[in-house]
Amino acid sequence: MDKLTRRIQTAAGEREADYVIKNGQILDSYNLEFIEADVAIIDGVFAGIGNFEGKHVIDAKGKYVVPSLIDAHVHIESAMVPPSEFARAVLPCGVTTIITDPHEIANVSGAEGISYMLQDSENIPMDIYYMLPSSVPSTPFENSGAILSAEDLKPFYEHKRVLGLAEVMDYPSVANTSPSMMKKLVDAQSKKIDGHAAGLDTRALNIYKSAGIGTDHECITAQEALDRVKRGMYVFIREGSVAKNLKKLLPAVTERNARRFMFCTDDKHIDDLITEGSVDHNVRLAIQEGLDPLLAIQMASLNVAECYHLSTKGAIAPGLDADFLLLNDVSTFSIAQVYRAGELIAEEGETKRIETVTPSKRITNSVHLPKLTKEHLHLAVTDQEANVIQVIPNQIVTEAKKFTVNRNDNNGFVSCYEKDLMKLAVIERHHNTGNVGLGIVKGFQFKDGAIATTVGHDSHNLIMAGVSDEDMIKAAEVIQEMQGGLVVVRNQEVLAKLPLPIAGLLSTNDYHSVVRELEEIELALKEIGAPEHFNPFLTLSFLSLSVIPELKLTDMGLFNVNAFRHISINE
Amino acid sequence: MDKLTRRIQTAAGEREADYVIKNGQILDSYNLEFIEADVAIIDGVFAGIGNFEGKHVIDAKGKYVVPSLIDAHVHIESAMVPPSEFARAVLPCGVTTIITDPHEIANVSGAEGISYMLQDSENIPMDIYYMLPSSVPSTPFENSGAILSAEDLKPFYEHKRVLGLAEVMDYPSVANTSPSMMKKLVDAQSKKIDGHAAGLDTRALNIYKSAGIGTDHECITAQEALDRVKRGMYVFIREGSVAKNLKKLLPAVTERNARRFMFCTDDKHIDDLITEGSVDHNVRLAIQEGLDPLLAIQMASLNVAECYHLSTKGAIAPGLDADFLLLNDVSTFSIAQVYRAGELIAEEGETKRIETVTPSKRITNSVHLPKLTKEHLHLAVTDQEANVIQVIPNQIVTEAKKFTVNRNDNNGFVSCYEKDLMKLAVIERHHNTGNVGLGIVKGFQFKDGAIATTVGHDSHNLIMAGVSDEDMIKAAEVIQEMQGGLVVVRNQEVLAKLPLPIAGLLSTNDYHSVVRELEEIELALKEIGAPEHFNPFLTLSFLSLSVIPELKLTDMGLFNVNAFRHISINE
Repeated sequence: MDKLTRRIQTAAGEREADYVIKNGQILDSYNLEFIEADVAIIDGVFAGIGNFEGKHVIDAKGKYVVPSLIDAHVHIESAMVPPSEFARAVLPCGVTTIITDPHEIANVSGAEGISYMLQDSENIPMDIYYMLPSSVPSTPFENSGAILSAEDLKPFYEHKRVLGLAEVMDYPSVANTSPSMMKKLVDAQSKKIDGHAAGLDTRALNIYKSAGIGTDHECITAQEALDRVKRGMYVFIREGSVAKNLKKLLPAVTERNARRFMFCTDDKHIDDLITEGSVDHNVRLAIQEGLDPLLAIQMASLNVAECYHLSTKGAIAPGLDADFLLLNDVSTFSIAQVYRAGELIAEEGETKRIETVTPSKRITNSVHLPKLTKEHLHLAVTDQEANVIQVIPNQIVTEAKKFTVNRNDNNGFVSCYEKDLMKLAVIERHHNTGNVGLGIVKGFQFKDGAIATTVGHDSHNLIMAGVSDEDMIKAAEVIQEMQGGLVVVRNQEVLAKLPLPIAGLLSTNDYHSVVRELEEIELALKEIGAPEHFNPFLTLSFLSLSVIPELKLTDMGLFNVNAFRHISINE
Repeated sequence: MDKLTRRIQTAAGEREADYVIKNGQILDSYNLEFIEADVAIIDGVFAGIGNFEGKHVIDAKGKYVVPSLIDAHVHIESAMVPPSEFARAVLPCGVTTIITDPHEIANVSGAEGISYMLQDSENIPMDIYYMLPSSVPSTPFENSGAILSAEDLKPFYEHKRVLGLAEVMDYPSVANTSPSMMKKLVDAQSKKIDGHAAGLDTRALNIYKSAGIGTDHECITAQEALDRVKRGMYVFIREGSVAKNLKKLLPAVTERNARRFMFCTDDKHIDDLITEGSVDHNVRLAIQEGLDPLLAIQMASLNVAECYHLSTKGAIAPGLDADFLLLNDVSTFSIAQVYRAGELIAEEGETKRIETVTPSKRITNSVHLPKLTKEHLHLAVTDQEANVIQVIPNQIVTEAKKFTVNRNDNNGFVSCYEKDLMKLAVIERHHNTGNVGLGIVKGFQFKDGAIATTVGHDSHNLIMAGVSDEDMIKAAEVIQEMQGGLVVVRNQEVLAKLPLPIAGLLSTNDYHSVVRELEEIELALKEIGAPEHFNPFLTLSFLSLSVIPELKLTDMGLFNVNAFRHISINE
């Protein structure tokens, strides 16, 4: 018998439900009030609100029953685990649906990376919807692992979990109606198109919205949010590991415009997800800031479902997927149990083990480095002042500075702890082109050693900073051996490492192991003298992102973002 | 150059807009407030809110600029004009988009009727979206012109203006999961499915919503509305020619649940549309009843667009269709001008002539009657009390009564003005089967003559009531000659007629002519003594609707709806 027939019969009370939620306060997400009623579930779908009997009772006595949450925009790769493991980590947060943009893995592995993410999230107890990366590569000023054209993206629209085109970051290409961007936009006109409207003024917003770009998660002020809502964009209020916008944006939300707002994490590391939560944290924070808890829950569920036309998500109502939470308390959003498609899937912060898809060899064999020598790392400098990248703690922008630097007999730059000037290297790692970009960075304060990572936005080449060339060479060797990841080396000794063999971005271990490995990395960083008020690996991973000011380093060399061109070290 | 490129360039201010709205108060439908700004339009689409220059200025000084309205559910056939002419009549009301269910013409002409409605609305300045009739025929107790199975409907889903399955009226078939209904519901699961949940209790609502039925326009109390909203249904607040629900339903609407409410007309006659308006009347009435005018406008535009996933409709924002109104005043919703796709399309109550598609011969040749004789109309009665249909003014339900009636020598029923007992006849008119149903009706109070119409819900057979058999025969002849319509006959003379040659339902004249013809009908009705406190043709047209209590007449005979079976005259 088909499921629709079974559901109708269950609604009619003629067939026993699989589960009946009893004794709870049920959130009516449409009238925004709690009601007392039984809720019937069959085949993972709600079949009625009223009086029901079922094979099993979910006793919600003393509990509040609310729809589970939807993260409107998240890059799974920031958690350094595959989708299946991400689900395991995040389901206890009450999040059973996410909309994700596999931008990072696409930059390394292209269409194959997207396919892997889709496959790894196929048979798991979380609904993971995909937006297709719109900007791979992000810039022409570095070499990435893949290029994704409109033609490459198009076949993915056939997939039922692909909803549209992911955050369009390349504002100039939209404003200039570049042919390759226009193709992507035209293909997605009947789909959803997410935006990335960081700092865009109202003229630029007109351009974006005219192009069909309907969402933004980059607002940092309430006025920015209102300007976007006014033009028909949905605004995602973000709380990530780095970007935290909720307190500034919440004043924009009123009962009259709340339907245009929702929550997202965007980029959140695995340790933060575990300690602080996913968008459940946004909900809690919003309530703390004075938002009506029911409105906050609606923003984190129904509003996202409406925005992305997920007609069977977002509320507790007949015909909708039985994705819901039992809360101990509404105002603290304390989660007792998490149900997805009618099944208890997380309790007390734990999800059962989820099957992971084995990635193909091409994806786990993505690091192709030259055999590094001191010659590769030789950075010739003059007695003139050199261009130096000055990092700013907890920001992804840098300052372009100039300093007189130490040289060896061979006119090669020599790192100097006293001056806090260190060598920075970006090595193309996708195609073994031998491209090496060299520069000088200030702010890391390492006494000795070197750190290296294949997480280097957005092309994810190998990026390293170190006091000693020998340790940098050793770090690269370890990275090659691990097929990507993070490593801290001192005196040729590996102090800590985190292997990320999936595209050099994701671990094959469970998330608990990843958290432990990250803790070891943290200890190792202390040993080499790294400051504790910011995360050197996170900072390092953005030093190659040549769309963010002011001075960056790619595998093609130093890049001055303001001048929008490569420059030489002593220029 | 493609339109998307042109739109982006216009948004950027690099290309002159086609039109710029200046000096007006612009409704921001998302934050629900008026703002002062220019609005740019190119290729019929909004391209920006800000400062713009254009080829033409739409000066909105002293005016309020709001999105045009959307009727969430309407049967065009009730206006007795084709879609193109309906558009001409309704555009001045500020309605530029409707969602229609061609249920009536489908009952006569099947798939061909639907195709005709689609064609006739293809190149007109109104966006007419279709829902596919779910119940053709409505019942097995009469003969209709067509039968539409799930297989017949399916090809229409390919049409870009077909949004889903129209109001599912046959509750028993859903509750009993009848195979033919299940097929239709399964095919529409990824589309929209409208409901018709008249009087349904909460158990039945659970069934309907579990089946994927997402809307209802049949609420008559605020509690019914809230019961439906609670289960995730959208509620359409109806003001038609007969059913008027707004005053009773409006108390259910709050700022917190308003997004689940919108307006519709359902069935509204052409004269009422012209004198009172379309859903603009609902808006005005809602404001009079105390609803925030901006919320009322939002309900009549953005909410419908969201409900039906019409992503480019419902607000004034970049990338959306430039469908808007200039209002003289908000609180009275006084419309100065109506724009659709950027073009001025109605002003001062007048629309320019719209091209109409010529319907095929099969559609204009839908009346196939036998050559009627007195024998056809001979209703044999005994001296026992006869079953009589008692009409109730302004209602579509009837009462089943019993009366002793006059007989002629041949035991044939004889109409009697003094007793207000008249002959009623339903004659199958689609396939010339010769089926004639005969009965007795009380309440029309005609002194003499007869009236006849091919508008007879839902199968639209010929239905006639008269004091004189000769006049009924004459009326049928006129109907056959006109290929459908309305006629009033007295002493073999045609007092007034309204030809409806398109499927026996729609005129080929312009709507002004139809209104004049209706006025003549009204005068003729007075001449034969018809009461003035209800519309005899409207009442007559529902006397064959065998799903509405209590006693009805179809071409297959008297039907007692409560007993759910045909009965004989003296039973």
